[in-house]
Amino acid sequence: MSRFKLIPVSLAPGDESLSSLSPGVELGLFDANGRALGVATAWPAGWVLWFTGLSGAGKSTLSKAVAAELAAERRIEILDGDEVRTHLSKGLGFSREDRDTNVHRIAFVARLLAQHGVGVITAAISPYAETRTQVRALAEERGIPFVEVFASSSLESLVARDVKGLYKKALAGEVEHFTGVSDPYEAPESPDIRVETDRETVEQSTAKIVGVLRARGLLAPLPLTASTNGAHSHAGA
Amino acid sequence: MSRFKLIPVSLAPGDESLSSLSPGVELGLFDANGRALGVATAWPAGWVLWFTGLSGAGKSTLSKAVAAELAAERRIEILDGDEVRTHLSKGLGFSREDRDTNVHRIAFVARLLAQHGVGVITAAISPYAETRTQVRALAEERGIPFVEVFASSSLESLVARDVKGLYKKALAGEVEHFTGVSDPYEAPESPDIRVETDRETVEQSTAKIVGVLRARGLLAPLPLTASTNGAHSHAGA
Repeated sequence: MSRFKLIPVSLAPGDESLSSLSPGVELGLFDANGRALGVATAWPAGWVLWFTGLSGAGKSTLSKAVAAELAAERRIEILDGDEVRTHLSKGLGFSREDRDTNVHRIAFVARLLAQHGVGVITAAISPYAETRTQVRALAEERGIPFVEVFASSSLESLVARDVKGLYKKALAGEVEHFTGVSDPYEAPESPDIRVETDRETVEQSTAKIVGVLRARGLLAPLPLTASTNGAHSHAGA
Repeated sequence: MSRFKLIPVSLAPGDESLSSLSPGVELGLFDANGRALGVATAWPAGWVLWFTGLSGAGKSTLSKAVAAELAAERRIEILDGDEVRTHLSKGLGFSREDRDTNVHRIAFVARLLAQHGVGVITAAISPYAETRTQVRALAEERGIPFVEVFASSSLESLVARDVKGLYKKALAGEVEHFTGVSDPYEAPESPDIRVETDRETVEQSTAKIVGVLRARGLLAPLPLTASTNGAHSHAGA
């Protein structure tokens, strides 16, 4: 860990301050006698990036790709639909009521984390538009930015790929409440971000999502070694 | 927000650095040109302070008192038993299995938050010793310090006080699964902290808890305006 001092601007020397501080880097804080004050990290405020889309449309894959892209510059947590079902929603099924309960739990935990400065990425199907409106409100009523990403893919290409073999079973009538086949999916009419995962590469979709987050000021400024165009001010946010 | 610069120790002036940095204060970070880099806070790592005790023994009251005491110096979140039941465990009852499920959910969310640097205080009855051992393991397997606080009070004094009138009903046989009356409570044999809420004031119990957290190095160092004895090094932690 590098050793830095915090100096009031009025007392600091003019030109010698650090020129390569990457956001998210841990800084040891020391007083004038070299005594440790603690550790600081330059994190911006939290937000929720909420994926919605059919099974197999790339929500988990893109969650991981976005997280990997951002992990170096800020705190990130992924709340994956399946993992949350194990830890928070065991016993719930796939009726509308149970799905809504599960989605609300994810939203509650996402908000808690975001309130403490975490960038939270959720990856549950969340098929109902009204429920998505509610979880957005849950975040926004606490001032947490909420960004909806629609992972869009035609049913045909999902069936053709069918990574887990679930569409085959669903189409054969062997799976009740399978979203998009035997259960409704209400596509967002105006998502904050739309990625076409049957036409775009993972890299293209990831770049699109990260670009929107950055443009909306939700990411830390770029390291100072990058061009000045990448640096956004978060000081007053 | 005060304006500070981060200066490499090697370049910083000797004696002029700030002398009253309170942990938890937000610092605006600026480069040499006054351009905002972001916001930093000097938070130490997260932990879980896990209350256990009978209904009415003071878990919620002490959670709030400890949180109020620490809020100025670090991030704190209270996961209260009742609130968590509303948001994460609606539909669960008070059988051993349902109680365990509820407690595990609290532990899962507490760990998530603590992994992101939050000091998490939980206030659920958590009556079963084995389950408490499990939730401790859940935290510690990720390196999260786990501190068990036993809010101890004799049943007699709880019945005498009976703030919510629940003991009266339970003793009349009107409440099934009421911990301490019609359901077991397994008192911790060696809690990290024991507060005797039927003999101590809220202030005394709070001071005891905060004292242990501080002694274990789980709190930020005291502001530099305090004596040097209060300053612990977290820089290498």
